[in-house]
Amino acid sequence: MNQRIIKLLGILEEYKLDGMLVSLPANITYLTKYRSRDSYLLISKRGNIYFTDSRYNEEAKLHLKGIASIVKINGSLFKLIAKYCLDLGLKRLGFEERYLPYAEHQKINSHLRKKVALIPTHSLIEKIRQLKDNQEIEKIKQALQITAAAFEFIKKVISPGVREIEIDAEIERFIRYNGADNPAFDIIVASGPNSAYPHHITSQRKLENNELVLIDMGVDYLGYKSDLTRVFFLGKINSLAQEIYTLTKKAQEKALKSIYPGAKASEVDRVAREFLAKKGYAKFFGHNLGHGVGLEIHEEPRLSPKSEDILTSGMVVTVEPGIYLTGKFGVRIEDMVLITNKGCEVLSGSLDK
Amino acid sequence: MNQRIIKLLGILEEYKLDGMLVSLPANITYLTKYRSRDSYLLISKRGNIYFTDSRYNEEAKLHLKGIASIVKINGSLFKLIAKYCLDLGLKRLGFEERYLPYAEHQKINSHLRKKVALIPTHSLIEKIRQLKDNQEIEKIKQALQITAAAFEFIKKVISPGVREIEIDAEIERFIRYNGADNPAFDIIVASGPNSAYPHHITSQRKLENNELVLIDMGVDYLGYKSDLTRVFFLGKINSLAQEIYTLTKKAQEKALKSIYPGAKASEVDRVAREFLAKKGYAKFFGHNLGHGVGLEIHEEPRLSPKSEDILTSGMVVTVEPGIYLTGKFGVRIEDMVLITNKGCEVLSGSLDK
Repeated sequence: MNQRIIKLLGILEEYKLDGMLVSLPANITYLTKYRSRDSYLLISKRGNIYFTDSRYNEEAKLHLKGIASIVKINGSLFKLIAKYCLDLGLKRLGFEERYLPYAEHQKINSHLRKKVALIPTHSLIEKIRQLKDNQEIEKIKQALQITAAAFEFIKKVISPGVREIEIDAEIERFIRYNGADNPAFDIIVASGPNSAYPHHITSQRKLENNELVLIDMGVDYLGYKSDLTRVFFLGKINSLAQEIYTLTKKAQEKALKSIYPGAKASEVDRVAREFLAKKGYAKFFGHNLGHGVGLEIHEEPRLSPKSEDILTSGMVVTVEPGIYLTGKFGVRIEDMVLITNKGCEVLSGSLDK
Repeated sequence: MNQRIIKLLGILEEYKLDGMLVSLPANITYLTKYRSRDSYLLISKRGNIYFTDSRYNEEAKLHLKGIASIVKINGSLFKLIAKYCLDLGLKRLGFEERYLPYAEHQKINSHLRKKVALIPTHSLIEKIRQLKDNQEIEKIKQALQITAAAFEFIKKVISPGVREIEIDAEIERFIRYNGADNPAFDIIVASGPNSAYPHHITSQRKLENNELVLIDMGVDYLGYKSDLTRVFFLGKINSLAQEIYTLTKKAQEKALKSIYPGAKASEVDRVAREFLAKKGYAKFFGHNLGHGVGLEIHEEPRLSPKSEDILTSGMVVTVEPGIYLTGKFGVRIEDMVLITNKGCEVLSGSLDK
């Protein structure tokens, strides 16, 4: 067993749980350091069991040595999970209430025949995952380096007449030649009026002169993600767009300055939001200021008005204010920062804004 | 309201449901013909409501006119959903038991204050989605055409010394210049011994001479997916690999011949599996023979030993036998077929094997 699993077992004990069924792939990957897909992990003091099928069985055997026994699913997965829980003599089994579908809960529960209680848990592993160790930070930095390089590269591709999807195509190719496995999410290339939709689906639209293009991208490097947004101007930009850009940048600067270990995440969000409110643009900033990034592109903590998270040394979060003027254009500037003992380090600091 | 929603309302009536909460994105997309993300759709005779947040609100307004009212989430989504159910006077609300997480079910249920019964449903929309209409078949054909073109293109790239990830990189670029939005799933490029893992993660490994490379890929074309697998040989291939390839191809041919409207999906799987069993390779074919493809890369029906599905005109499925020899190599050949009134049409028929 590794330190991560030992830590989880300690937490389970606090909750009087003698086992936990982990179903979120990122959580399984975190605990095993193996990129899990379509599988389940049962954690208990009496042994860990990884349930997978023939597609992954052989691969898993190579990677999970000493961490978990591997059980190949053949027939009903949920009956099988229940059988192992009963065999291990578990009494109180935690499960991830946000990820286990209703039907799976019902099936496992019925096979447990009231001999094991299924206890909903919330964010037990996600809370551990918030604090990144040095190995994780190195991978995130590597992911950011590839992303920053992709931004430098794509600057040369951006010009009037090029389609959004073609910019995406070039980025997709570039990042894989430069060490990434995949993008971290569907890359957003939003030109002109499309930039007013925060999660625009990259389209066939051709870039035009005298407009802006917003690119929101990240990569997956050995499981760890990056997430950056930049806005590029083509030709002459009108004064409104310039003003919006300057305000967004300033909102981000103010937010970044307000980050320190111990700060409330909601307070950092408030700093950016209040600045934009004073300038009359608060209602055009609809989304949260930021989110944690790691094995998942969106993870804890949340930088939002209602967040109850406290920023702590070792967390990695995005800071991404935006102003979206429907029918006109939108601007978002997004960087990733590591909370340190002193304040924060902008991990994507080398990239122009 | 459109025909798809009207059809669903008819089915809800059979189950004595006066509404349904749809959470699976592909199901929402099917009903609305709008590519939904992170949203929920409430269907009822008294009106349809689409719940989304500020990231998608403006986009959704453009596309959902006449289909659903749009409600922007601000605060608790589940309280909001419950409020609308109560306002509409619903009594029995269906939900998708396989997709609604346990915690969401609990939250909605508590906000419904026992005034609306939450009823688990299974595959109501998925069953409708199995039968593709002409528009859908056209999109799938288009997705396949792009994929087939990508295979023709990549043949020229494959050579010793090239990395798996570089082949992926070139495909990722090619498909986007040729009309696709995205790959349909993580493209598998599995060279040499890596091909023995059915769901290998494309790696930094360099292709070597005298080995094979397996490529499993598909694209997303306006929401519809394709899924094809081909194996390429570099240099001299030993007789075992040749034999395995021939057997896999023959297993596929036999399975294809056994497809007709009214056939049991399990029977088609059996035809391929028994042929491989006779040759002594059944235990190296661990996965199912095939699956439906449409808005999701894996959907109903299933071609598996335990499937109870009956193949019907209008279904689109993969037929993909494989033989995997751990430590050596693996072979899979995958095509997509449309079940017709007479038998089946191999939609990827023009591509060499």
